[in-house]
Amino acid sequence: LVEKHRKNGRKIIVVQGLGFVGAINAAVIADTKVKGKKSYFVIGIDQATPNSFWKIELINRGECPYKSEDIEVEKVYQRTAGKDGNFRATWISEAFSFADIVLVDINLDVIKKEFGNAIESTVAIDPFRNAIKDIGINIDPRCLILVETSVPPGATRKIIEPIISDCFKARGIDIQKFPPKIAHSYERIMPGKDYVNSIRNMWRTYSGINESSKEKAREFLKSIGNTRDYPLWELSTPDASELAKILENSYRAMNIAFIQEWTKLAEDIGVNLFDIVRSIRVRKGTHDNMMFPGFGVGGYCLTKDPLLAQWSSKELFDRKENLELSVEAVNINDLMPDHTFDLLMKALKNKIKGKKIAILGASYRKDIDDTRNSPTIRLYDRIKESGGRPFVHDPYAKKITQREDIKVHSSLDEVLSDSQGVVLVVNHRNTLNSRPRGSSQE
Amino acid sequence: LVEKHRKNGRKIIVVQGLGFVGAINAAVIADTKVKGKKSYFVIGIDQATPNSFWKIELINRGECPYKSEDIEVEKVYQRTAGKDGNFRATWISEAFSFADIVLVDINLDVIKKEFGNAIESTVAIDPFRNAIKDIGINIDPRCLILVETSVPPGATRKIIEPIISDCFKARGIDIQKFPPKIAHSYERIMPGKDYVNSIRNMWRTYSGINESSKEKAREFLKSIGNTRDYPLWELSTPDASELAKILENSYRAMNIAFIQEWTKLAEDIGVNLFDIVRSIRVRKGTHDNMMFPGFGVGGYCLTKDPLLAQWSSKELFDRKENLELSVEAVNINDLMPDHTFDLLMKALKNKIKGKKIAILGASYRKDIDDTRNSPTIRLYDRIKESGGRPFVHDPYAKKITQREDIKVHSSLDEVLSDSQGVVLVVNHRNTLNSRPRGSSQE
Repeated sequence: LVEKHRKNGRKIIVVQGLGFVGAINAAVIADTKVKGKKSYFVIGIDQATPNSFWKIELINRGECPYKSEDIEVEKVYQRTAGKDGNFRATWISEAFSFADIVLVDINLDVIKKEFGNAIESTVAIDPFRNAIKDIGINIDPRCLILVETSVPPGATRKIIEPIISDCFKARGIDIQKFPPKIAHSYERIMPGKDYVNSIRNMWRTYSGINESSKEKAREFLKSIGNTRDYPLWELSTPDASELAKILENSYRAMNIAFIQEWTKLAEDIGVNLFDIVRSIRVRKGTHDNMMFPGFGVGGYCLTKDPLLAQWSSKELFDRKENLELSVEAVNINDLMPDHTFDLLMKALKNKIKGKKIAILGASYRKDIDDTRNSPTIRLYDRIKESGGRPFVHDPYAKKITQREDIKVHSSLDEVLSDSQGVVLVVNHRNTLNSRPRGSSQE
Repeated sequence: LVEKHRKNGRKIIVVQGLGFVGAINAAVIADTKVKGKKSYFVIGIDQATPNSFWKIELINRGECPYKSEDIEVEKVYQRTAGKDGNFRATWISEAFSFADIVLVDINLDVIKKEFGNAIESTVAIDPFRNAIKDIGINIDPRCLILVETSVPPGATRKIIEPIISDCFKARGIDIQKFPPKIAHSYERIMPGKDYVNSIRNMWRTYSGINESSKEKAREFLKSIGNTRDYPLWELSTPDASELAKILENSYRAMNIAFIQEWTKLAEDIGVNLFDIVRSIRVRKGTHDNMMFPGFGVGGYCLTKDPLLAQWSSKELFDRKENLELSVEAVNINDLMPDHTFDLLMKALKNKIKGKKIAILGASYRKDIDDTRNSPTIRLYDRIKESGGRPFVHDPYAKKITQREDIKVHSSLDEVLSDSQGVVLVVNHRNTLNSRPRGSSQE
């Protein structure tokens, strides 16, 4: 296949990791045309584990492993993994050897000991190191490694580059002649109804460990995105690009945490904070991103990115000072569902034992089936441990992957019938299964 | 005078407090025309104390007591306190009795025990109560009291209204027939080159303790501002309007504090946070208000407003929970100049004893002479207590009112000559006295 596509003038892009970012990213890259001609053959690599193997099969059948409200996703998959066959998936690491560019889209997980104690978290750096080693063992020495994973600032220079250099040396490659080419550029993909659009029409910031890495990264990113309307930003070092991503998400995490303490104040005072925030948001450019009160924070980024900065600060740069506010923001956000639980208890006059409570929503944001770190989990647990009987409904998510023990019911009626409490958690467009998809009613 | 202006069809507005808000506000109100005719005679009231008396004299001579880069200020004063004579100042409280509307623009100070320990602050509520009593003793019972001072949420309802009612009762006024009319509407006046514009062209949010208060406030605010482009926002209760103002400023205080910990991280990592923030701010609507690294926070609002919320929470609503993040933001911001001091010490290899250090800037923001809570004070003290010799220069501010012991030099040469360290604190447009005002060079 590689030979065939090379003959067609296509470069080979290998995407490592077929998760919520990699799976969509890979298809969009395969869909890229330069002067009317498809420019890339994309190979997606993931592991042959129960958690990932099914994705490889699905992709090779021309289907996206994830469901979303964005109809473009399906179309892009049909054009690439389907009709044109210029997107294939595999679990075989040797495929890295074909790559002109490797995109790193794997996870880098933060493991929390418990909610409310984020400072004691650890970063699962070992599996990440092993994945990078997989690349170093296999790639052509001229290949560019473009890291898109959110990593602790300093990771490209202090973790990834040494691994690749060591691999090259072990393979007898002269690294004076072939210095590793590594760049970092973070994605801003947003699962949901703008999934594909959030790759193509979005600013990209990047940097590289040397000039040729920057140049190759720039050229590639230019070919993928609409850089006329969303010009590329080059930063001086990968440290800066890595920090930018983490700061960007920490900022949102902080803004959410900040509003949480005002939510509680407003409730106790007896004023409607939604009205107040709306009145303040008229100040465009300074206050229009003020958050509204909410139920909780989930997903893969906001729940952990501030902790990557804290880890970097301590482990990679040996700093004594903690990122107090940013870490505290994670604590506050992780514990947000406790406040909803308190409101529920208040409404039930503290009598929850044996009561059926409907939780409407399992995903971490509306109109998607993505349940990663969904705050629903904590509410579920709080209700259960207090003797209540929580029932979760979601029209999109079929299950909560982290917690197979929590049954997600697709029937709203089943969850509501005989319930003695209802918690509205996610404002999905379609909360009634019976309603046709794409209905404009909210 | 009142009789003369009433005959001219003018309403009488009494402005209590002629500080940075009241002095400008009063003049702008006096400058207001409805159908080509000046609608108001404005009386400004302040105290006959050394701190305030001079303002009364100046105003009655047709001059603004404050200097700013906004040439409109002078013009408005000439037209009102000068030529037309429909703006006068006095220290005599009996003038309240003439008012159709009293505007409360007095201070409500927060007294900090020490920087870094904001939770132990107190609110100077007694002078505020006395000032409100002054109004209650004197006003016509049909008069509207419009509170513009930033007050702890709940203050209008729980502090001001009872005082006015008590005064009315003591005066034998039937409060069933004449229920007090009290509204709250916060200003968003910004000292500097848009001083006057920030009154006329700015959204106003308001509420009142009853319908007639709201109605009168609405009618008045409509006459003053450009409500076509900046529509008025009515909130349900004064509690909500009070909280809105405090939240709005706490949000900015928080965003500044947040960036401070990333500033330190970025410095230790060796990346330029200015570049990074610039790259993130391209995300309009979600990230474009991210703050740049800075020297410190001064002025009257951001340094205290989060603490008004904390005070209200504890004292007016009996809450146990603190506003942890918002109070911590004040601590971080108050201590920001310490970081600049640390950088200075590092540059001087910890040898500061006897060295002359130039601090360029005394005001709390650029292009104004307002030095309230200027962070320059803390840097000055840190240098001095370490044995250094700090010299402060500012082209606008002639002194730091809070600290008469700190000499502010208007000669830049004098401050720079023989100095062994220079700290650039305020980016005033005009840092050279010799340069003509209004020059476009920065």
